[in-house]
Amino acid sequence: MNFTDERAEDGVTRRQFDLTVAGERVPAVVWAPEGARGPRPLVLMGHGGGQHKKITTLATRAARYARKFGYAVGAIDAPGHGDRVAREETAKIAASIGERMRSGVAWTPETMKTARDRANQAVPEWHAALDALQGLDFVGKGPVGYWGVSLGTMIGVPFVASEPRITCAVLGLAGLLTDFEAAAGRINIPVQFVFQWDDEVATREAGIALFDAFGSAEKTMHINPGVHVAIPNFEAEAWESFFVRHLGVAADRASARTAEAVGA
Amino acid sequence: MNFTDERAEDGVTRRQFDLTVAGERVPAVVWAPEGARGPRPLVLMGHGGGQHKKITTLATRAARYARKFGYAVGAIDAPGHGDRVAREETAKIAASIGERMRSGVAWTPETMKTARDRANQAVPEWHAALDALQGLDFVGKGPVGYWGVSLGTMIGVPFVASEPRITCAVLGLAGLLTDFEAAAGRINIPVQFVFQWDDEVATREAGIALFDAFGSAEKTMHINPGVHVAIPNFEAEAWESFFVRHLGVAADRASARTAEAVGA
Repeated sequence: MNFTDERAEDGVTRRQFDLTVAGERVPAVVWAPEGARGPRPLVLMGHGGGQHKKITTLATRAARYARKFGYAVGAIDAPGHGDRVAREETAKIAASIGERMRSGVAWTPETMKTARDRANQAVPEWHAALDALQGLDFVGKGPVGYWGVSLGTMIGVPFVASEPRITCAVLGLAGLLTDFEAAAGRINIPVQFVFQWDDEVATREAGIALFDAFGSAEKTMHINPGVHVAIPNFEAEAWESFFVRHLGVAADRASARTAEAVGA
Repeated sequence: MNFTDERAEDGVTRRQFDLTVAGERVPAVVWAPEGARGPRPLVLMGHGGGQHKKITTLATRAARYARKFGYAVGAIDAPGHGDRVAREETAKIAASIGERMRSGVAWTPETMKTARDRANQAVPEWHAALDALQGLDFVGKGPVGYWGVSLGTMIGVPFVASEPRITCAVLGLAGLLTDFEAAAGRINIPVQFVFQWDDEVATREAGIALFDAFGSAEKTMHINPGVHVAIPNFEAEAWESFFVRHLGVAADRASARTAEAVGA
């Protein structure tokens, strides 16, 4: 693996690399504790529409997971996003999403087709990213979780459904709009599904229908008042509890914690 | 205050006492860290129908909160429950609840009247219990939370709505069935509302209607698959995060935690 960029900050190293999938360059990034060696839990994070793999909210959470739990965290730019397109293109997508939200018409046959095409393209890219990440000595073949809301769920549902290495997933901010009911039904790992009650992109009925469609025995829907972008901060705490419950913490981080607890 | 019983176990002291409200004896119990002095957060816990103030699930949670967060926890027997009635009477109530669940007819005009009467009687009893608890030197006037699902919510909604000392509440396993829509609307503190998607006692629509009726800006609904009595264990973790976020931890427990963290 050739890293195109590597930098350490506050005990966390962020490395970038490129994958080639179906002839297209897919820029990827991985965060891990500085000096990490050996296998550890890995969380894959799918960014939202009009965002990119290192958007502040995602990057901050990734660094926090690395520092606090010793996790590795991987992210890639979705098709048509981030370093895969010119900056102006991204701005145009973000503006069009904003317009769709304000207009109250989030979904048209055209926007649904774009979403479906992006998901279809992204799924093999994520599989390839997971292969590459597990090949890194500081990631290895530990337990794998997925986090992704909005576009991260539109892509995440078919990806998680087709990826047996993923053992738990945080999804949300999406409804059962596109043709992924069958994929949702194939998901049978623990799911934490976060939903905004006044979401401009997904109706309450569609959100509940997607929650109902998951095949998982353990699934929880967290409903909060407010619009699409207004997930309350305390849900971030709930995601951490969820991942620690299902993935544990890294072996090196676990010993550090024990040492702290006994005052060593 | 005369305690009718006092016992310590695993660092937690449980004391029992009697209140008299409207001429009726209301048996009460309070858990607190052994040797506790001075004010601390207080959580009031309302038990479910057919249960009592020291039912294992509640008592275990109370002792855990005292040990882990330094909280005081108070509970009383609801009207027609626990030490307020003969043991055979309680068994009869529990059996009738079980029958109602199995029959699929949870609510009739008669059972709704009983629930409403119990709530009306319980509200002044809870106010009196809170007065008494805050008069104890090891409880004092710290922040107060409420926890109660099922019957604990049927009583909790009108109680919390009428009690400005309560600053956050965990409610659940109930729908907007009785005439407490107005009371729910008066609740404007943070609420965590836990709901079972296959509840035999409250329909999905009634559960969502109650969640919608709360006047709180911060309110979260946690939906899990399964029947009334099958709240998953991880929700207990979510309740702890919720109370710690809103009530903090006891001053004496906070210093103990800091001491642990620095290895003292």
